[in-house]
Amino acid sequence: MIKVALIGQGNVSFHLARAFRTAEKVQVSVYDSREESSKIEKYSADICIVAVSDSAIKEVSEKLQRVDAIVAHTSGSVSINELPNDYRRGVFYPLQTFTKEKELDFTNIPICVETENKDDLDLLSELAKSISKNVNKVSSAQRKSLHMAAVFANNFTNHLYQVAYDICDENKLSFDLIKPLIIETADKIRTLSPFQAQTGPARRNDVTTISKHIELLENFDRKEIYSQLSKSIQKTHGKEL
Amino acid sequence: MIKVALIGQGNVSFHLARAFRTAEKVQVSVYDSREESSKIEKYSADICIVAVSDSAIKEVSEKLQRVDAIVAHTSGSVSINELPNDYRRGVFYPLQTFTKEKELDFTNIPICVETENKDDLDLLSELAKSISKNVNKVSSAQRKSLHMAAVFANNFTNHLYQVAYDICDENKLSFDLIKPLIIETADKIRTLSPFQAQTGPARRNDVTTISKHIELLENFDRKEIYSQLSKSIQKTHGKEL
Repeated sequence: MIKVALIGQGNVSFHLARAFRTAEKVQVSVYDSREESSKIEKYSADICIVAVSDSAIKEVSEKLQRVDAIVAHTSGSVSINELPNDYRRGVFYPLQTFTKEKELDFTNIPICVETENKDDLDLLSELAKSISKNVNKVSSAQRKSLHMAAVFANNFTNHLYQVAYDICDENKLSFDLIKPLIIETADKIRTLSPFQAQTGPARRNDVTTISKHIELLENFDRKEIYSQLSKSIQKTHGKEL
Repeated sequence: MIKVALIGQGNVSFHLARAFRTAEKVQVSVYDSREESSKIEKYSADICIVAVSDSAIKEVSEKLQRVDAIVAHTSGSVSINELPNDYRRGVFYPLQTFTKEKELDFTNIPICVETENKDDLDLLSELAKSISKNVNKVSSAQRKSLHMAAVFANNFTNHLYQVAYDICDENKLSFDLIKPLIIETADKIRTLSPFQAQTGPARRNDVTTISKHIELLENFDRKEIYSQLSKSIQKTHGKEL
């Protein structure tokens, strides 16, 4: 049995708690990050997971000075070295987008783990494997890049959905018309690389359509986004043209 | 029974042919766009679907002068008026991304139809409904905007996957780590609006992380895309900050 103290009230903590509760051989207690550490000490956890916002990791983890457990944060962009250096430090980063409103199946969510020694890595990996089939050893430097890749693949992608939504809305069209396209676009990368899956005016170097679109877009930011991304697609596929 | 002559050898024609073949009450024949129209005349179709590239629509449709059928193209960005004006003109635009390598279920693909009179609209809609549950009357002006929205939601989104792929590759990380995130990002918009689903540094107006990322990105185009999209997210969510 692995005893886990999960600290935090956010989306990550919410979904991790739910996943750990369904795992065999894991016993989890959830703590408010504003609580004193004495409660967690009494619980004598094997692993403390600090699932709080990046800016709160330092302060919350420092409160755990007297805990003899692996202390792991869950952030994509914070180095393992930002935890107090006399700790058994670790990182337990589930690479997914979390919203409380939407249930998630953890089984396929990649969990990126990092520790400073082999024994801690084994224990933290064991915990990760109790909820996911997709556990990976990833260094702090790699994780920083991975998190940035995730910003492109998730945050920015969602903003392009927003632009599409706004264009539909302004033209009295239902966004539902676009949803099957969005689902299929994502689904394609299960079997095709983004390079193979690329289509559209910029991919074909169809400068007439590109110019027409940029003219049709009245909003300045959209014009900029359109021309910037088209240019980048043209460069990526330039050698074939 | 609706008799359909489908003209073209591309991805759209390929997938439409497959869908029509499974439809009851539809009889389809596929023609090469380089063929003479005499074959199609002999077939005496009710509807000719010109599924060719935007730039070939005019030339291919003009060859059908002696055909007494609705002549509909399948393009998102070409006006109905670009077909010869003495025709029973129409548009039959399936809003999806098509690759030959990947099978598609047409049932949920939105089909946008347009004609110049009610009888033709009824017939073209009947054909659309034989393969899809999602048939919509969309004008040429609306369709032009819809196609542009699709460029953002599909072409540009896929290019962001490409950037994420490249970042992973350069850091010896498998792109498989990002795939579940991509699937979930798309899946979220089934139930949440893009506005509700937006997360990340720009959404939180976390200027420290934004600056760090822009610094970390060595490639100039990526820096530009990052800052452009972040700025646009900040503007979209600005009122709440």
